[in-house]
Amino acid sequence: MKKIAIIMGSASDLAIAQDAANTLKQLDIPFVVKVCSAHRTPDKLQAFASSAREEGFGALICIAGLAAHLAGAAAAQTTLPVVGVPAQSGHLDGIDALLSTVQMPSGVPVATVAIGAGRNAALLCAQMLAITDDRLADQLTALRKHMTEGVAQKDEEISRLFTLNEKENH
Amino acid sequence: MKKIAIIMGSASDLAIAQDAANTLKQLDIPFVVKVCSAHRTPDKLQAFASSAREEGFGALICIAGLAAHLAGAAAAQTTLPVVGVPAQSGHLDGIDALLSTVQMPSGVPVATVAIGAGRNAALLCAQMLAITDDRLADQLTALRKHMTEGVAQKDEEISRLFTLNEKENH
Amino acid sequence: MKKIAIIMGSASDLAIAQDAANTLKQLDIPFVVKVCSAHRTPDKLQAFASSAREEGFGALICIAGLAAHLAGAAAAQTTLPVVGVPAQSGHLDGIDALLSTVQMPSGVPVATVAIGAGRNAALLCAQMLAITDDRLADQLTALRKHMTEGVAQKDEEISRLFTLNEKENH
Amino acid sequence: MKKIAIIMGSASDLAIAQDAANTLKQLDIPFVVKVCSAHRTPDKLQAFASSAREEGFGALICIAGLAAHLAGAAAAQTTLPVVGVPAQSGHLDGIDALLSTVQMPSGVPVATVAIGAGRNAALLCAQMLAITDDRLADQLTALRKHMTEGVAQKDEEISRLFTLNEKENH
Amino acid sequence: MKKIAIIMGSASDLAIAQDAANTLKQLDIPFVVKVCSAHRTPDKLQAFASSAREEGFGALICIAGLAAHLAGAAAAQTTLPVVGVPAQSGHLDGIDALLSTVQMPSGVPVATVAIGAGRNAALLCAQMLAITDDRLADQLTALRKHMTEGVAQKDEEISRLFTLNEKENH
Amino acid sequence: MKKIAIIMGSASDLAIAQDAANTLKQLDIPFVVKVCSAHRTPDKLQAFASSAREEGFGALICIAGLAAHLAGAAAAQTTLPVVGVPAQSGHLDGIDALLSTVQMPSGVPVATVAIGAGRNAALLCAQMLAITDDRLADQLTALRKHMTEGVAQKDEEISRLFTLNEKENH
Amino acid sequence: MKKIAIIMGSASDLAIAQDAANTLKQLDIPFVVKVCSAHRTPDKLQAFASSAREEGFGALICIAGLAAHLAGAAAAQTTLPVVGVPAQSGHLDGIDALLSTVQMPSGVPVATVAIGAGRNAALLCAQMLAITDDRLADQLTALRKHMTEGVAQKDEEISRLFTLNEKENH
Amino acid sequence: MKKIAIIMGSASDLAIAQDAANTLKQLDIPFVVKVCSAHRTPDKLQAFASSAREEGFGALICIAGLAAHLAGAAAAQTTLPVVGVPAQSGHLDGIDALLSTVQMPSGVPVATVAIGAGRNAALLCAQMLAITDDRLADQLTALRKHMTEGVAQKDEEISRLFTLNEKENH
Repeated sequence: MKKIAIIMGSASDLAIAQDAANTLKQLDIPFVVKVCSAHRTPDKLQAFASSAREEGFGALICIAGLAAHLAGAAAAQTTLPVVGVPAQSGHLDGIDALLSTVQMPSGVPVATVAIGAGRNAALLCAQMLAITDDRLADQLTALRKHMTEGVAQKDEEISRLFTLNEKENH
Repeated sequence: MKKIAIIMGSASDLAIAQDAANTLKQLDIPFVVKVCSAHRTPDKLQAFASSAREEGFGALICIAGLAAHLAGAAAAQTTLPVVGVPAQSGHLDGIDALLSTVQMPSGVPVATVAIGAGRNAALLCAQMLAITDDRLADQLTALRKHMTEGVAQKDEEISRLFTLNEKENH
Repeated sequence: MKKIAIIMGSASDLAIAQDAANTLKQLDIPFVVKVCSAHRTPDKLQAFASSAREEGFGALICIAGLAAHLAGAAAAQTTLPVVGVPAQSGHLDGIDALLSTVQMPSGVPVATVAIGAGRNAALLCAQMLAITDDRLADQLTALRKHMTEGVAQKDEEISRLFTLNEKENH
Repeated sequence: MKKIAIIMGSASDLAIAQDAANTLKQLDIPFVVKVCSAHRTPDKLQAFASSAREEGFGALICIAGLAAHLAGAAAAQTTLPVVGVPAQSGHLDGIDALLSTVQMPSGVPVATVAIGAGRNAALLCAQMLAITDDRLADQLTALRKHMTEGVAQKDEEISRLFTLNEKENH
Repeated sequence: MKKIAIIMGSASDLAIAQDAANTLKQLDIPFVVKVCSAHRTPDKLQAFASSAREEGFGALICIAGLAAHLAGAAAAQTTLPVVGVPAQSGHLDGIDALLSTVQMPSGVPVATVAIGAGRNAALLCAQMLAITDDRLADQLTALRKHMTEGVAQKDEEISRLFTLNEKENH
Repeated sequence: MKKIAIIMGSASDLAIAQDAANTLKQLDIPFVVKVCSAHRTPDKLQAFASSAREEGFGALICIAGLAAHLAGAAAAQTTLPVVGVPAQSGHLDGIDALLSTVQMPSGVPVATVAIGAGRNAALLCAQMLAITDDRLADQLTALRKHMTEGVAQKDEEISRLFTLNEKENH
Repeated sequence: MKKIAIIMGSASDLAIAQDAANTLKQLDIPFVVKVCSAHRTPDKLQAFASSAREEGFGALICIAGLAAHLAGAAAAQTTLPVVGVPAQSGHLDGIDALLSTVQMPSGVPVATVAIGAGRNAALLCAQMLAITDDRLADQLTALRKHMTEGVAQKDEEISRLFTLNEKENH
Repeated sequence: MKKIAIIMGSASDLAIAQDAANTLKQLDIPFVVKVCSAHRTPDKLQAFASSAREEGFGALICIAGLAAHLAGAAAAQTTLPVVGVPAQSGHLDGIDALLSTVQMPSGVPVATVAIGAGRNAALLCAQMLAITDDRLADQLTALRKHMTEGVAQKDEEISRLFTLNEKENH
């Protein structure tokens, strides 16, 4: 199976990377985790991204805040899909990172997920690999079903809670 | 090869769909184009998205404006990757569609591209299919090279233009 | 009397749902509380919303954050009025939920209230039921009068506070 | 049947009011159209809104731009439901009117629809009246069905268009 | 001397009102403090604002958050200058209150100051009264001079601090 | 009577200055119009503003776009009230000018009106002068009454228009 | 004298580059103009920026729209000052480009000017060179003086215009 | 070597000034630190900025929040490069300061860095001085190299951490 690379622009994005890593682990998808900055280590990023396909990677997850160029800089060096995760960092609630990640020019897409959405970035990579991997597709379906059941259970708990309160009040 | 579905929330998004379609055609990726609304034809969308994998689709492109729920509603019905294209529509420059598309909750990702970016949505789908399709990966590399050369040619033209102007002025 | 359904997209919206529930209780309007997600349990939402009128509901309150599709997805399945409450969730102060809820396309309205405004959502439902229910209209008038008197009392307290301070200083 | 009042803050909002009026006409709901400003004719607004229920109105539609206080000022004078339509006016794309309309304090809700959404404002009023009016509910269902069929027809046209193009190209 | 009225839309705006009150006290300008809401006590506001000139007021300060209509509603009832202070309240950092206060339609101005700027609202009222009151103008000049000296003193302290640090390091 | 100075940061703000000038003329308030930039002619602005009170001015209107420092820079040099009019200029719809004008620090207020609101700036100055000028206060009341009647007339026209249409359709 | 490089991310930014070029020409500062994209020709940008100092450049001007990474990517490859000019491109008025350019992480600054401000970018480069070049400093002072006189002349024209109008009206 | 002036608009910006000072110290660049406000001590700012070049300064760093005019006001008085640091202050996350600092009119540039970016402001000044100072250029290269190595080390630590976790889990 193809590997996924989880790249952080800064070690301060560790919590988001951890969410992505946990999700990939849950799905038995191999991955590496790296710290690599578009602005502070551009040459390492260039080297890593441009050889990622031949190194056996299937997709890259790039997590960065502020003027978040990490995903775009990686996407400029590979034709593998690059998933961008805008990180909240600094004062603008992550809206700077969101726009810097998603508003890519024609020719070089970045698949952007929500601000801070490490788990969704991993799920998206899994969905990409599952296009041609039926076993993984089944795992994703199972995960989705599990999630659906979790919401259904919450629904029951809370419905009951309100019904009980009602009865107590009468 | 897996097919791609290009779904518009409204016929007014045709120009963006056309950009996506042209790009897929350029790469010989089979596709269908549909008009299907999360709010006006929710049941058709539900039916289409939930059976898309078994119908031979590899990914869905969803184009919508305003409170753009199309991509999210499709993503809720399939574990195929869903690419969301926010469309400029109404008065808010597409920022409403961008936030409605990208800020998905944990568990149901949408791969969001820039506002109006039909071509990038198609390229992203191609990149997904190319994870396990070397011929398509080569085509994408060729396309990227072609683009790079186009910029280099523009660079030469414009550098020359300014140098000529300089000479004329001296 | 018609019932009101209070639907949360996630159990984390409980405080807002509680505000709505308390207000309905205060007005003796029957209600149920549910957890149901546009993205995680779309089929349950579809089933609930499409049969809500025949189940005796008069209006639905939908509370959701982020790319808040809950109200819109419910509104797509019923011609009952749907009240949308954008919830603050994630990093963008609820502006994502506000735009995702209010900017609905022509044909499928959502009656949107302020971010986090569970009580106002319930009052709005009560106002709808009170169009043809004079007793409820009287209750709403009484509630409004009570609120007016509360502000008037605050006015007296604070006016007096400043007048006293003035006197002490002289 | 209860009447609906369509109130414009300025005669420049006429196009939005026209959309609302046409929709109500389509549904045989009686209505009046007024120009009345929260800032320029506050006393007329106060007089109209505070007596609207006894004058046979079921809901008010308030259309205004900029610091759009019209809906809120009307809502302060009645317990009828007030639907607010933010209008694009001036330089800020209507975001000023949206926030001025929707962010009402606890106790005085305004049912806000999208910027410029005159038709949705009328549909929302119809939905409110239809809570207890089965014939009107049937009309709304028919209108929704008609809309659904319109999208389905567009879908066929556009699907066919792309299929034909495909064939021509092969 | 004319009096100033400080009006809060809600008792939760007390800190801002206190700032305004302290500043007026410092300048020996008489004032009253009131709680009065555009939405919850519209008739009291109407009564107060429309008779404010004949009651001896020279200007009104209106402090409100969210869809902040207080200043606009007061301005609609008087030709006295109305100073609007947007208050941070709810989830949007006060930007809703700022736009609701400042974007008034032609014919009914509100003199808007910064979000939360109770002291500046009072100074602005003092400046208005000082147009024709030389003693008050002199007081304002003295206050300004005092402020200038305060900054100059801070400048000295901090310049010295850095110079000392420098010396210690060498 | 005190004079008003209308100061433009750039000759491109002429239309707004013209609106202000016409309003002052309508009220027989003497005024001068100047082009003076906080960034391009700071010394002239400093000289003008610091001597404005002794030159017989009662208030300054400052119109500027972009990083609109004009009003703030004038306010720093005088204790006369300064009215700031943010102008739409460049690409950001005037929101840059609005924030640059209104968000003044404690101690130096600017009375900010809506983006482009030249007429309201003039009315606000007139209201300030009218605090102690009963004849001008009467003129303002007359102007307000005239405006009220204008809206009332529009109301009649448009109400009649819709009633006639109704009749034609029946 | 050190040269300046004007780099456009896309040929569509030509007008801004032209403004910068004209300004440099006016000051006799040598320059080159290039088209070079952070995403489409990253290797050429890397090569150019990393050798710019030894090639005799003193500063780089980078003009780009959307997720504008050009300036940041250049700054990552050199310790020469990089001036970033956000360009309006696409649907978001250039706010995406502004945030992508200015919100750089610690360690790699970009000197950002206003959206579309080609002339100011050139002036800023000239100011940098003039730190140690007295002749160029004098030229900048002369240019500033010329600008000041231009505003003063506009001031006279417009003051006279209004005074004449006044006289005609009397 | 030319000196750098670090000017704060308010003593509350001390932390940002400290970051700038520490960076300059690290590079052995002489500097002074001042508190000087565009609105509260405009004359001192005017005096300081207009004589800064002859006093031996090479560039000015201006740190200010809210309607941040400090950098623009300084830039209006000198042709030295002025670096603007928007400070987070008040309720709007520093977006007011960012727009007030960066959106300067043609003719008077401000080199704006990220919100709160004191260190980057200092590095930018060092880069300006290093255009003609090879020793300082070497220091900057060394600093950059040090930073690159820091990221590389973090990369190793975190890569190892995840690899170890992996092994433990198997």
